[in-house]
Amino acid sequence: MEGKRKKILIIGGVAAGPKAAARARRCDPGAEITIVEEGSFLSYAGCGMPFYIGGMVEKHEELMATPVGVVRDAAFFRNVKDINVLTGTRAEAIDRENKTVRVTNLATNETYDLPYDKLVLATGSKPVRPPIPGVDLAGVYTLGNLEEARAVRRAVEQGARRVVIIGGGLIGLELADTLGTKAGITIVEMMDHVLPTLLDPELSVLVERVLRGKGVQLFLGSRVERIEGDGNGAVARVVTTAGSFDADLVVVAAGVRPRVELAREAGLELGETGAIKVNEYLQTSDPDIYAGGDCVENIHLISGRPVYTPMGSVANRHGRVIGDNVAGGRDTFPGVLGTAILKVFEMNIGRTGLSESEARRLGYRVESFICPAPDRAHFYPGSKPVIIKLVADASTRKLLGAQILGPGDVNKRLDVMVAALSMGATVEQLATFDLAYAPPFSTALDPLTHAANCLRNKLDGRARSINPLEVKKRLAAGEDFVLLDVRTPAEFNEVRLPYPNVVFIPLGKLRERAKELPKDREIIVFCKVSLRGWEAQTILESLGFTNVSFFEGGIAAWPFELDTSPRRS
Amino acid sequence: MEGKRKKILIIGGVAAGPKAAARARRCDPGAEITIVEEGSFLSYAGCGMPFYIGGMVEKHEELMATPVGVVRDAAFFRNVKDINVLTGTRAEAIDRENKTVRVTNLATNETYDLPYDKLVLATGSKPVRPPIPGVDLAGVYTLGNLEEARAVRRAVEQGARRVVIIGGGLIGLELADTLGTKAGITIVEMMDHVLPTLLDPELSVLVERVLRGKGVQLFLGSRVERIEGDGNGAVARVVTTAGSFDADLVVVAAGVRPRVELAREAGLELGETGAIKVNEYLQTSDPDIYAGGDCVENIHLISGRPVYTPMGSVANRHGRVIGDNVAGGRDTFPGVLGTAILKVFEMNIGRTGLSESEARRLGYRVESFICPAPDRAHFYPGSKPVIIKLVADASTRKLLGAQILGPGDVNKRLDVMVAALSMGATVEQLATFDLAYAPPFSTALDPLTHAANCLRNKLDGRARSINPLEVKKRLAAGEDFVLLDVRTPAEFNEVRLPYPNVVFIPLGKLRERAKELPKDREIIVFCKVSLRGWEAQTILESLGFTNVSFFEGGIAAWPFELDTSPRRS
Repeated sequence: MEGKRKKILIIGGVAAGPKAAARARRCDPGAEITIVEEGSFLSYAGCGMPFYIGGMVEKHEELMATPVGVVRDAAFFRNVKDINVLTGTRAEAIDRENKTVRVTNLATNETYDLPYDKLVLATGSKPVRPPIPGVDLAGVYTLGNLEEARAVRRAVEQGARRVVIIGGGLIGLELADTLGTKAGITIVEMMDHVLPTLLDPELSVLVERVLRGKGVQLFLGSRVERIEGDGNGAVARVVTTAGSFDADLVVVAAGVRPRVELAREAGLELGETGAIKVNEYLQTSDPDIYAGGDCVENIHLISGRPVYTPMGSVANRHGRVIGDNVAGGRDTFPGVLGTAILKVFEMNIGRTGLSESEARRLGYRVESFICPAPDRAHFYPGSKPVIIKLVADASTRKLLGAQILGPGDVNKRLDVMVAALSMGATVEQLATFDLAYAPPFSTALDPLTHAANCLRNKLDGRARSINPLEVKKRLAAGEDFVLLDVRTPAEFNEVRLPYPNVVFIPLGKLRERAKELPKDREIIVFCKVSLRGWEAQTILESLGFTNVSFFEGGIAAWPFELDTSPRRS
Repeated sequence: MEGKRKKILIIGGVAAGPKAAARARRCDPGAEITIVEEGSFLSYAGCGMPFYIGGMVEKHEELMATPVGVVRDAAFFRNVKDINVLTGTRAEAIDRENKTVRVTNLATNETYDLPYDKLVLATGSKPVRPPIPGVDLAGVYTLGNLEEARAVRRAVEQGARRVVIIGGGLIGLELADTLGTKAGITIVEMMDHVLPTLLDPELSVLVERVLRGKGVQLFLGSRVERIEGDGNGAVARVVTTAGSFDADLVVVAAGVRPRVELAREAGLELGETGAIKVNEYLQTSDPDIYAGGDCVENIHLISGRPVYTPMGSVANRHGRVIGDNVAGGRDTFPGVLGTAILKVFEMNIGRTGLSESEARRLGYRVESFICPAPDRAHFYPGSKPVIIKLVADASTRKLLGAQILGPGDVNKRLDVMVAALSMGATVEQLATFDLAYAPPFSTALDPLTHAANCLRNKLDGRARSINPLEVKKRLAAGEDFVLLDVRTPAEFNEVRLPYPNVVFIPLGKLRERAKELPKDREIIVFCKVSLRGWEAQTILESLGFTNVSFFEGGIAAWPFELDTSPRRS
């Protein structure tokens, strides 16, 4: 009997690996399942590292425990799941012909072969460590594993106050958020905006405003040239194209790369992103070898193209599919939407599907709309704004993506968009969703319904709206147009656009005062969010004005200068 | 010119009416648009009434204002939208042949005819006022309009402390929530459970536990026989089949009925629910008369059957479709899911689609699963549980409905389910959604993903699970089985099921101690949520046990007795 047990061997013990092992055990109680993990920790929540570093999660053990506090160590896997776990053991090479993996026990240096019937590669990713002079100094960290996270936290606890983060992506910003109250943060980002792969630029600017408001120094479009030491091998200063900064601690958050050495040397096919290529069953080019988690590339559900979007959530979903399939099942993993969410101080930021820039690069005929709205009934205590940008294919009216941010409930609208995009919804279908409404939770027309309706109006040619970037470009080019502010006097006194071509007429007075406006000049209307802007466009057109548009997002999402100096009505 | 302007006449000024008017104006700048409203208030958020009564919304004007504080009165509609509004004006009769509506100015008693090209009925609903003796006493209110809401609030402010709510539905519970800290609340509900049309009974019981925990007195399966006065025409006491209660204030929250008198007398077709029947364009049986909001019935998107589910959100969506169509468009309203959400003290409660009871009544082959899970990473501060019940068609694996409740983020998961149901998703599709994950927002596998996977395991015959109601029924019938608790000792000491057939073996010890269990008796396993329950089923089956199942929801969703007396390990 023992000789006939199917041997399932899994390389990697963080997310996809343990999940695949657990699922395989449930589907095949008789299989012999072994996990090989190079590190000493198993099955930990890598995404929790920024929160552990910031102290919001007190002990690193919490990242390794189940919700009821059971630590998922080797004994747990053995006793509960009947799974062998070999920590501190490195996989060196795959012998596909003999179906064995050569491993080394890192403590004893003993090397031996483990046989498999089905092999799972869950080798994960490693942080990019750019070839900057000085990157190996003490005090320069990446966040490749829990040990490094512990070292960074210890450094802050021991007094590191000048922290330079190299990279303004998701992890860099999460770190700025969790460390922001404990240290002075400088972020150096090569691209022109933070979150450059996640958001369109006009929304990244809103995030940058929040970061700067919290005292984070941002150097965008800047490159790190070298890291200088203090003469004793510890970091002292970061030299960039934007200047030099004293640093007690440097965290390199410049993204991650898939760990594919084992796969490459075994001759398994890699994809165009450099990650392991897998089919919908998560099989590599060798049908007895599966791969999942951060080491593989995925198919983007909207574009149909391979993308590299390493995420703990995806790794867990991969694990279940692989566990099913190595146990004889035929489950499939259809792909990803590149969903991401993060918190940057009081701002929640989410995105899924394609951004407008991505969609344009891919050749779609794109239409988009930016729509701020309160996240719950404005009369209910605690109502906060969210800003939604929807991106759609103007030819098919199918939704392509969404970016949502603000202090309000971004999380909910983001996941509704994930569902809508997963199911191929059109803008019209989104507008008809029977979304939940009660004042503590939403508005009678949810912000998403409202955003969908606005985009429909634009697609139908009813609403003539433009992106705020377009307005700024035309202001910069000195073009002649009227910027018509139709808000209330109270709103006007609070904050204004500081441009000489602004004319202020509250919406309620517009019909009677429209004669003050020139019919021969272009008029671009705006209000707080853009709804009254559209109303004003309709009114002016009904009065014979022919060159009227409004800009999207209004004051609430205006990414450039604002005049907030006190003013009496 | 004037004579050729299309005349759009709208009866009803609360939700669907003003929305239809505003949309019609945007689509047809030349139309003559008139709203006739019987009351003195216009376009107010009726769903905000419980919160106004409870004082969370300070002024009733806030329910009538736009988010920037503009009150939507007749002057607002005139100045901003070029819409005529006649408040205090009652529509008496429709003359379909001459296309006029007879109206009465309630102040002057003047009666006259208003002509129309397109007529919109947005006559709303009226609260059910059951024919109970004494229902007309002073101090007995329904919440039919803002005036009544103001009277209830005034009564509480002036000292009414003994409040009896007749009806344990959504509005009754919202009132209990908002008044709960200011008055002693008694709820009398005819059905056996609160929220009887929204939730399956095992979940209603969890809501009842919260209400009772907050000191709300619940009398279920009880009927009000009469309301007695104090001899001066004011309410003094409510006499029910469960006993008599002194009362300073009685609120009848026994549901609403569509206001269809005008439509019925004009010979327009009513549906089987008693509400006005409309087609997908929201046209009545007279193609020049549209209807929307609380006076019409809708098609349920899952069952395809007519339902009466009056909701402010639906009324707003109706309004846009009608506004489009009376202006010459062809927009459609596909239907509803019966989505509802409410807050009852610290518990959020949502539902959409069909409940299990509804689905069974409709003849579906139903499978369901109850799955509690933390709403965000358990290691992140503020993580709270949600309990998800998914209902699916076992033949097609399509999702039929969801009920979600708990102190955690119910709102988000509910609207994801709305999107999934709107698009006809299967359980498998739900499980693959690339939902957002970061520790402040969710878990690596979102509770919905997890619930979908659990239901898949059950549909596939892997997980043999039963509903807690079934366990209770078999306990009550004195059936012989072992209730196996596989939680940790710490969990066991905190709370236990108080039944003599409970055996306690922590999951980690189960493989070694399984021999203590009888192989010839049925074993029903449970844990805190049900995940370890399933794990235990798998373990026991691999050890040769053949009659093992687990019950869904574990201790976290157990709706019956719990022993929380202190116990040392």
